[in-house]
Amino acid sequence: MEAQSTRAEIVAAADDLFYRQGYAQTSFADIAAVVEISRGNFYHHFKSKDEILDAVIAARIERTERVLARWEQAAKQPADCIRSFIRMLLANRGDIKRYGCPVGTLSAELAKLAHESQPGANQLFTLFRTWLAKHFSLLGRDADADALALHILARSQGVASLANAFQDETFIRREVRLMEEWLEGEIEKS
Amino acid sequence: MEAQSTRAEIVAAADDLFYRQGYAQTSFADIAAVVEISRGNFYHHFKSKDEILDAVIAARIERTERVLARWEQAAKQPADCIRSFIRMLLANRGDIKRYGCPVGTLSAELAKLAHESQPGANQLFTLFRTWLAKHFSLLGRDADADALALHILARSQGVASLANAFQDETFIRREVRLMEEWLEGEIEKS
Repeated sequence: MEAQSTRAEIVAAADDLFYRQGYAQTSFADIAAVVEISRGNFYHHFKSKDEILDAVIAARIERTERVLARWEQAAKQPADCIRSFIRMLLANRGDIKRYGCPVGTLSAELAKLAHESQPGANQLFTLFRTWLAKHFSLLGRDADADALALHILARSQGVASLANAFQDETFIRREVRLMEEWLEGEIEKS
Repeated sequence: MEAQSTRAEIVAAADDLFYRQGYAQTSFADIAAVVEISRGNFYHHFKSKDEILDAVIAARIERTERVLARWEQAAKQPADCIRSFIRMLLANRGDIKRYGCPVGTLSAELAKLAHESQPGANQLFTLFRTWLAKHFSLLGRDADADALALHILARSQGVASLANAFQDETFIRREVRLMEEWLEGEIEKS
C-alpha cells in the first residue's frame, strides 16, 4: 500500500510539473522535491524520466476516460457530449491561459525531442478523436464523423494555443460560441 | 564583416535548432557544433542562450515581415493576402508535420518556462494578427477585423498542432479548403 501510494504521488507530481514547466525542463530532483522522498526511494519506483513519462501518459489516459464517461452520463443527446468537449475550453481556461493544452503541448514537445513516447502522448489525442467521432456518428454523420472530430479537435487546439499566447478571455468565449454555432449548423445538416 | 557573418551563422543555426528540437533542449554546444567555432569565439558574440533567443526572435520577425510584404506585392485584392496566409499550411506542411508551427511551439515552450522572452515570441503572433486584421479591414470588416484575424490564426494553429501529431496530409488539405470556404463566406458578408 505504502509503495503504491508513493508511486502514485511521484506520477501526480510529475504530471503536474510536465504540464506546468515542460518535460525536458523537469528533472528527477524537481519531482523528488515535491514528493519529499530520498533518491533511493525514488529509484526504487522509477529508473528513468522516460519511465515516469509513460506512467504520466497512462494516468492522463485513465483520467481522460473517466471525464469522457462522465460527459456521456450527463448527456441527454449525442450533441451534448460534443458540447461538453467544446466547453472544456471554458472550464479549464485558467490553466490553458497559463500553460496551454496539456495534450497538445506534451505532444508538440515530444515531437521536437523525437521522443519514443510521442505515439503514447498522441493516444490522448486519439482518445478524444475516436470519442468525438463516435458522437458525430450517433448524430447520423457516419460518413464524415472522423473529419468532423478532427475539425473540432483542431479548432479547440488552436484556441488553446492563442489563449496561452494572449491570455485573452473574451477571445476564448467568442471562439467557444463560434464552435457551438458550427455544431448547431452540422446538426441541422444531419 | 567576418564577425557579422559569424554572428548571423550562430543565429541561423540556433533558429533552426530551436525549431527542430526546442529551445530548452538546445545547448550552446549544439549550436557551436553546427557553426564549427570555438567556445571563445562563440562567447565573443553571445554571453547567454537568452541573448541568442532574442536574436533568433528578431531574425524571425524580420523574415516574417519580408514574407508578408511579398504576399502583399503578389496580391491582386485584400482577400489574396489572407489566402496566402491560409495556404502557408500547405507550403510548409513538411516542416509542420515534423516540428509543428515555429511561432506556436516557441510561444508555448516559453510560456511553460515562464521565460522573459515570451512576450517577444508573441510579437510574431501579433505581427500576423495585425497584418491579417489590416486585410480584413480592407475587405470592409473594420468592426470585427481583429476577431476575424484571431479566428483564422487560431484555426491555422490548430491544424498545425494536429498535423504535427498525426502527420496527416489529407487532414491539412481538407482544413485548408474549409478555411478558404470560411473566408469566401466572410467576403460575401462584407
